[in-house]
Amino acid sequence: MVAQIIDGKKIAQEIREELKKEVICLKEKGVVPGLATVLVGTDPASQIYIKNKLKSCAEIGIYSYHQHLPAETSEDELLRLIEELNFDPKVHGILVQLPLPEQIDENKVLLAIDPEKDVDGFHPINIGKLSARKRMEEIEKEKIFLPCTPYGIIEMIRRSGFTIAGSEAVIVGRSNIVGKPVAMLFLAENATVTICHTGTKNLADVTRKADILVAAVGKPKMITAEMVSEKAIVIDVGTHRLPDEKLCGDVDFDNVKEKVRAITPVPGGVGPMTIAMLMVNTVKAAKLSTKT
Amino acid sequence: MVAQIIDGKKIAQEIREELKKEVICLKEKGVVPGLATVLVGTDPASQIYIKNKLKSCAEIGIYSYHQHLPAETSEDELLRLIEELNFDPKVHGILVQLPLPEQIDENKVLLAIDPEKDVDGFHPINIGKLSARKRMEEIEKEKIFLPCTPYGIIEMIRRSGFTIAGSEAVIVGRSNIVGKPVAMLFLAENATVTICHTGTKNLADVTRKADILVAAVGKPKMITAEMVSEKAIVIDVGTHRLPDEKLCGDVDFDNVKEKVRAITPVPGGVGPMTIAMLMVNTVKAAKLSTKT
Repeated sequence: MVAQIIDGKKIAQEIREELKKEVICLKEKGVVPGLATVLVGTDPASQIYIKNKLKSCAEIGIYSYHQHLPAETSEDELLRLIEELNFDPKVHGILVQLPLPEQIDENKVLLAIDPEKDVDGFHPINIGKLSARKRMEEIEKEKIFLPCTPYGIIEMIRRSGFTIAGSEAVIVGRSNIVGKPVAMLFLAENATVTICHTGTKNLADVTRKADILVAAVGKPKMITAEMVSEKAIVIDVGTHRLPDEKLCGDVDFDNVKEKVRAITPVPGGVGPMTIAMLMVNTVKAAKLSTKT
Repeated sequence: MVAQIIDGKKIAQEIREELKKEVICLKEKGVVPGLATVLVGTDPASQIYIKNKLKSCAEIGIYSYHQHLPAETSEDELLRLIEELNFDPKVHGILVQLPLPEQIDENKVLLAIDPEKDVDGFHPINIGKLSARKRMEEIEKEKIFLPCTPYGIIEMIRRSGFTIAGSEAVIVGRSNIVGKPVAMLFLAENATVTICHTGTKNLADVTRKADILVAAVGKPKMITAEMVSEKAIVIDVGTHRLPDEKLCGDVDFDNVKEKVRAITPVPGGVGPMTIAMLMVNTVKAAKLSTKT
């Protein structure tokens, strides 16, 4: 049996359609959601990410304020810019594209962003609040911004009609951007959660138990068919460019899809969801700004 | 074979001896570590906890500033007191004993404490920073306060000579005070981590795989001998008073100790470690205050 392919592109499109309507309502109330994006340097991948984010903003009706700074920008200059954006009432969300050049301390920059404009969900206060809440409904209702990729993962599983509560979720990878926050979200959704990593012995024994398997390891096709069970819903967070220029994920898609219950493709899986959730966070920030 | 009994009381005593020496050095440099404790109301358990904390301070040479407020204290009054303590240079650590009376929002109070004086490690910014760091050494070196019970659990396992890296740690319970932060610490120590809870199906199947099992469920003797394997190191976070006035934990100690590799008793296990780590955090706060 071939797995159900979870179409991230289509789900992201649905979300954008919903946001368009919300933005129209907000504009009728005089609020134009605004996202400030900051790119430092000329990393080609970062340029593509930013381009896609700006395109999404335009489609939904979010006003975007893009700043492209030279690679030699100093930490102080960047921090001053963030300070300005923090105080700019037109800007509801601030996104600083990572990675930053070496001379800039990423942690300092993330800490400088007003937590109420931290639509990337990377500020320690948002991460801390996320860990402190018990249920997903609570988290979504409150002034908390969820990191976009983990939030997108949960959303694509929910919108595909699968039940997360009571399942065994196994996450391979413990990064701050994906592994750890997605573990907290699965907990909030009432799954039993296991986090594996390079220090895990007998990885395949652990991954085979998964009802939901999230691969966020950063190694092309590392998750093979032997490592998954028939019941698994496989979410692939990786994106790698192969020598033949094709893209692949952390999962050996062609073989794994023959075995499992459902799987996300690369491209067209988690990637579009990440950007869609950034838009969700930006609209949420704009809505919250009207309430204070 | 009977399990090794991990003597939390003795390990806590060792830690206090080490801290005494550190405090003498600090005092020679003109720094007297100070802990402000705040108790609202007359909950008998809270009064005992506070008494034990003040006793530990006295033994180590930490100056304690205790405030006992009436049960009907308003949120505003408590917040004003915390504000004062935040600005008081003699106070390096602030501990507000939980739970607080109904009219006071705990979250608001925790957020009001200066993160650099948050020796309980409950401020979202400390929780967020904890989740954001990768290795235990990093965490311990930085300006982060770890929540006392999780920190005590890790410390008692390390000081008993067991290896955490590469092990399977299973945590039963997902509270903000124990379950979730201890999961992050085990990850930072390179264990594979599984978090179970009331929503977990087949709990015994999961707990039986544990090399290290942390029981933080709040149900007397819930973890039985059938739920553990011979290789397990069992850490019992619960404390319950039985009808015969004896104390017991979340683990069926008498039967489990006949089977496993090591186990903590109740009382005399995690409890004394929690207070010892509060003292560690307070001395750390005092040391850090000299560096700014």
